[in-house]
Amino acid sequence: MMQTQPEARPQLHSEAFVTLARATKGQVDSALEKLASREIEKADKLASDAGAVMRALFDLATRGGKRLRPALVSAANVACNGEGAAVIECGVALEVIQAYLLIHDDWMDQDDVRRGGPSVHASLRKTFGDQHAGDACAVLAGDYAQGLALDLMTQARVPPVRMVSAVRELASMLTDVVTGQILDVRMAGAVETIHRLKTSSYTTRAPLALGAILAGADASVVEGLRAAGEPMGVAFQLQDDLLGTFGDPKKTGKSARSDLKQGKRTALIAELEGDAEAQKLIPRVLGKADAKDADVDALIARMVDSGAKSRVEARRAELVSQASAEIDRLAIDSEGKRLLHEAAAALAKRED
Amino acid sequence: MMQTQPEARPQLHSEAFVTLARATKGQVDSALEKLASREIEKADKLASDAGAVMRALFDLATRGGKRLRPALVSAANVACNGEGAAVIECGVALEVIQAYLLIHDDWMDQDDVRRGGPSVHASLRKTFGDQHAGDACAVLAGDYAQGLALDLMTQARVPPVRMVSAVRELASMLTDVVTGQILDVRMAGAVETIHRLKTSSYTTRAPLALGAILAGADASVVEGLRAAGEPMGVAFQLQDDLLGTFGDPKKTGKSARSDLKQGKRTALIAELEGDAEAQKLIPRVLGKADAKDADVDALIARMVDSGAKSRVEARRAELVSQASAEIDRLAIDSEGKRLLHEAAAALAKRED
Repeated sequence: MMQTQPEARPQLHSEAFVTLARATKGQVDSALEKLASREIEKADKLASDAGAVMRALFDLATRGGKRLRPALVSAANVACNGEGAAVIECGVALEVIQAYLLIHDDWMDQDDVRRGGPSVHASLRKTFGDQHAGDACAVLAGDYAQGLALDLMTQARVPPVRMVSAVRELASMLTDVVTGQILDVRMAGAVETIHRLKTSSYTTRAPLALGAILAGADASVVEGLRAAGEPMGVAFQLQDDLLGTFGDPKKTGKSARSDLKQGKRTALIAELEGDAEAQKLIPRVLGKADAKDADVDALIARMVDSGAKSRVEARRAELVSQASAEIDRLAIDSEGKRLLHEAAAALAKRED
Repeated sequence: MMQTQPEARPQLHSEAFVTLARATKGQVDSALEKLASREIEKADKLASDAGAVMRALFDLATRGGKRLRPALVSAANVACNGEGAAVIECGVALEVIQAYLLIHDDWMDQDDVRRGGPSVHASLRKTFGDQHAGDACAVLAGDYAQGLALDLMTQARVPPVRMVSAVRELASMLTDVVTGQILDVRMAGAVETIHRLKTSSYTTRAPLALGAILAGADASVVEGLRAAGEPMGVAFQLQDDLLGTFGDPKKTGKSARSDLKQGKRTALIAELEGDAEAQKLIPRVLGKADAKDADVDALIARMVDSGAKSRVEARRAELVSQASAEIDRLAIDSEGKRLLHEAAAALAKRED
């Protein structure tokens, strides 16, 4: 059903997943708040500057964030008849890892704003009154977060054999996401390869696999969830790319021109490769903070007229179908499949 | 015996440990070479720039390095009657983690030389012809190494319950070492606190604990080894500080003036706090690449005349005694204790 009409009924299908996601978010937010207090207090005892670094880290980790990854851990766990053991700890670990990734990315991209506030390097440059000290401590905040996530994960109570699999899943996620970021920073490799490595790995593939692993699911189900998560994450990223230019600024919280001016190498840009008119506009717009509105608007119009936008939308639908087909193949009950179909649809159709 | 005469007979006592350390180094070096080929090949297939990042990472990881940490894993494993399972994998993981730490540290300290070659950020700045791209990819090389180490560790074959403890040990090591680096970068906290967090954690405490964990030792033995490793690592760092100024340049491979000119906040500098004459010299020498030789030599002379050097040496001996006392308390056989005593003496007395 989903494969043929993935666009038709997101609202109807998203109920169970949305409810589960909301409950998970509440628990993860509350655990993150407690963690933040504990870590800041511990660091403050060592030195106020260490406390400042932890404050910057947890300001980011607790500020906003949809807690989508914990929701997927939870959904996969429920779908595999898991009892929820270690699901919240795992979700918190993933959020802390996301903070690490965002901090390092923002410093690399020199983005000074994140989640409606200062990025961590921007904040620490100000705190320490020194650019290099701020940058160094931002990188260290990320480094710390990575170690902390591992610590949180391994403190959770599940049978050791499941925990070892979970940590291995985290490890392969961590190497993939960094490989994707290397390609992104160097603008090397195909855009979809980067999406798979940098987005799918930690947004969908690992969270779904982790939920199943913590439920003690069979290896074949875990592998099937990885296979479903891979296209699901790319679809999520394509939707992100579409929203970055065609989304409703009231819902996304960012200008329709921001992705272009920031120079993001999105799927939309990749689809314009053979379009002569767009190629003339791109050097004047992409990554140019002072690009003329008329040029930006002309490039956006070109995305529509050249069919680039439609092709990205078609690819998104195709990826959702692939994910749905993988979900249908899983050796789990139909209720579980329904929940995962809903999750896939919600991700690809989100509006913010 | 060791407690009262720790200085008297390093050569005699170090035989068994030295032999074990040499054998371990051979196996770790060979595993690292294989790992380097595999990782570089994999990255090259994605994009040549990804290959360049992996080359820089493994150039550092395979270039020199005493493989001291793997030797300690091995020694603790043997001392606990372990059968060596996962010891080499764990040693390789620790070396990869050390590469991560060195890469990030060198970038933070802006040190362009490491192990007789270019540091990773210096190398990648040159490869990419761009300072920020080089720095970003150096940080990513370190990030990748951290994930890779976790992957290597969890692929090793040991009972899952031991693996979970091992990963937990790694996690607490990783958060401690980063906390120590935050204090170091900000010059906050007592010097010995930094040594405990930044050096003991990953040089001695975790390696010894990991060797015992992989051997399936009792929790009390693991805890005792942590307690022994803590002072042992500080003694190692004090020896490092002493060698940095008073070592034989032919053996250490660096000038006797290098620690001072680089501005390292060593135990020797900390011991000069109350010395008025030294305090006059310090601003002219510490961290000044162009300091006058006469001023540097005067400060070094002050370290001797004020008793700072003797106090650091006495503290080193005291810490070795503490480590020895902890080793004596372990519930392991006398041969095992002898091996660990030798390791402690070798670390505190090394000359390079």
